[in-house]
Amino acid sequence: MAAKNLFYAQSGGVTAVINATACGVIETARCHSDSINRIFAGRNGIVGALREELIDTGLESDQAIAALRQTPGGAFGSCRYKLPSVEAKAREYQRLLEVFEAHDIGMFLYNGGGDSLDTAWKVQQYAKQQGYPLIVIGVPKTVDNDLAGTDNCPGFGSVAKYMAVSIREASFDVASMCETSTKVFVMEVMGRHAGWIAAAAGLAQEHEGVPPIVILFPEVPFQQAAFLAKMKAEVDQHGYCVVVVSEGARDTEGQFLAAAGSTDAFGHTQLGGVAPAIASLIKHQLGLKCHWAVADYLQRSARHIASAVDVDQAYAVGQAAVKFAIAGKAGIMPALIRSASPQYSWSIGTVPLASAANIEKLLPKEYISADGFGITQAAKEYLEPLIQGEAPPSYHQGLPDYVRLKNQLIATKLEPFETS
Amino acid sequence: MAAKNLFYAQSGGVTAVINATACGVIETARCHSDSINRIFAGRNGIVGALREELIDTGLESDQAIAALRQTPGGAFGSCRYKLPSVEAKAREYQRLLEVFEAHDIGMFLYNGGGDSLDTAWKVQQYAKQQGYPLIVIGVPKTVDNDLAGTDNCPGFGSVAKYMAVSIREASFDVASMCETSTKVFVMEVMGRHAGWIAAAAGLAQEHEGVPPIVILFPEVPFQQAAFLAKMKAEVDQHGYCVVVVSEGARDTEGQFLAAAGSTDAFGHTQLGGVAPAIASLIKHQLGLKCHWAVADYLQRSARHIASAVDVDQAYAVGQAAVKFAIAGKAGIMPALIRSASPQYSWSIGTVPLASAANIEKLLPKEYISADGFGITQAAKEYLEPLIQGEAPPSYHQGLPDYVRLKNQLIATKLEPFETS
Repeated sequence: MAAKNLFYAQSGGVTAVINATACGVIETARCHSDSINRIFAGRNGIVGALREELIDTGLESDQAIAALRQTPGGAFGSCRYKLPSVEAKAREYQRLLEVFEAHDIGMFLYNGGGDSLDTAWKVQQYAKQQGYPLIVIGVPKTVDNDLAGTDNCPGFGSVAKYMAVSIREASFDVASMCETSTKVFVMEVMGRHAGWIAAAAGLAQEHEGVPPIVILFPEVPFQQAAFLAKMKAEVDQHGYCVVVVSEGARDTEGQFLAAAGSTDAFGHTQLGGVAPAIASLIKHQLGLKCHWAVADYLQRSARHIASAVDVDQAYAVGQAAVKFAIAGKAGIMPALIRSASPQYSWSIGTVPLASAANIEKLLPKEYISADGFGITQAAKEYLEPLIQGEAPPSYHQGLPDYVRLKNQLIATKLEPFETS
Repeated sequence: MAAKNLFYAQSGGVTAVINATACGVIETARCHSDSINRIFAGRNGIVGALREELIDTGLESDQAIAALRQTPGGAFGSCRYKLPSVEAKAREYQRLLEVFEAHDIGMFLYNGGGDSLDTAWKVQQYAKQQGYPLIVIGVPKTVDNDLAGTDNCPGFGSVAKYMAVSIREASFDVASMCETSTKVFVMEVMGRHAGWIAAAAGLAQEHEGVPPIVILFPEVPFQQAAFLAKMKAEVDQHGYCVVVVSEGARDTEGQFLAAAGSTDAFGHTQLGGVAPAIASLIKHQLGLKCHWAVADYLQRSARHIASAVDVDQAYAVGQAAVKFAIAGKAGIMPALIRSASPQYSWSIGTVPLASAANIEKLLPKEYISADGFGITQAAKEYLEPLIQGEAPPSYHQGLPDYVRLKNQLIATKLEPFETS
């Protein structure tokens, strides 16, 4: 088989380690010039393919590519753009293949979450149907850890470590002030549907119940009376408490707790925020002084406190994706496989894109404690291995030395195209 | 002079390195058994002295004390409690001296910010007036960096580093998503009156203007039109922008921007938060998608990303305080002195408590750029040395190995006492 060009694109919310995957892809592809000719990356993900904005990664030095391993964000740009169904917009699929054909692309590696795997699968089917020789590999990435078919998702281990470290640190702060000041610290974490990140905060406990942490999962409908009773009991016993609340926490009627109809100082409807809402509730109902934090993007970009296991796995799925593509394994996703206990180890297998896409893996019931406010031993055993090891970036003048690529586009060959 | 007992207390909001100061105090005092007999710490700061709740640090191992250097929060408990004036409540001063006398305390080291230095000074004067032989040393600590008489304050360098690292990381995230998603990231930082922490976020820039960062200082009255014009220009030029807003940002009439009269989903008045207010403003006025974060206690407890310079200085002021106490230098504060340029170096001098207390050092005008939204080269030259070096804690099973002390109280000798 003649060497083909490879196209790599980043998709959806970025993570602290998605560039480690890019690093794995490019370093591996560079070692296989017999099978892979040029390596292109989409400027802003798949949008770059539709617009024929292809970045020539060949212009980046080996050193710059190696530095991707320690750089957060999406180095080529990512996007929130879901390809419509083939039935609704075959034109976009057709355009993709036109761009691929114009630039002799025979391999498409799509690095993203559930929606992106779905898109990857649709593109694979469409190419087959059109008789265009294309190998599509979905490369898993999401802080939400909600993909099926893989034990865990690259990106999650680092946000889990960030969360466990942050909650442990904040708990030391609150514990020292609670006698005369703040008694409750509320932290809002990502997770619209699945409580994996919230669960990771439970790892901050050194011992059973210490520090006291009350978790509000999206999987557990919020019961105000039970929550307030739990809070009061923890503060009575320990003098303080930390609350971790998923952005996706809902009441018993399925309404987001964050969906406040409030207005701000400028007279505008306030953008959500469940942490301030929970803090207000505690203050008004229990009379306890609260502070609250919303980490937002900090949690998924905190490369400085990334999990070494996560960085290794993110690199490995990129590396494996290239090897699978060379081996002609079309329409699959490299998946992380956990070994049998007692010692954690992992390897990489494959799952068909069809069985990984569009399935959202929620936190299992057996990972949530009986009262609904904490995690179980089983959850700890699942989560702990994923935050092991530190992988600090190099520092320059006191700050992480992250890389910015040249991101130079190759010359276009086709007419412009407007995305929908 | 016969050896006396030493009393150490932590005060006010804790930091990532106040325990490094405690470590410096205790390790140094342990080396001077000729001058210092026992070392007590106040349980929850000065409240512990009033209540005669004195922690016997002699029961802690050398290893546990050494581990304080890498542990955030206040290991003995801190407090928000300002002693009233002697005129208003001489009884509290009298009680302090009674407790000190009952436990043969001849040295009082008070580790805190402006209010605490003021208290230390009052206690020093009162003891002198009463003829009680007491050496009071104020030991500087505050993330706000607003103390007079010292080049910088222990605690600030680490929050500055946390902020610069976090903003750099978040800017990589936003830059990669801005084409199809979030264009503005708003981060709220501490600083009710002084914009030192907000200024530190400016260090996140790698080059002039990259990444684009717009800072709202408490020292600069908020002008909505100018701010929106600046925002629009940055987003037009770079595609995205990061906004750093001090919790103390105010409008031209001196009103806090965070003072929202809004109600939340539970029908309660919302606890403040200037980040969501600014995000709403940008969204409604410019139609730009925003995300926002509030780091709150995370910024001051993030020991994992502490500045090595800050840790060293925090330790050194504790060490110096003990040496000054032994030398009989009553009523002073160890202060950090910056050497002449070009190479940054520091040493420790002394300033009288009277001249350090009750003066709030705001960000100088020459540190704020002409348009009011950034920092100058002079600010960078001041700030940069303070975030140099990493001082990671030791890790155990993927998490920082912070110490919890036994904190055992000594037997009381006096009647109970109720604080006001």
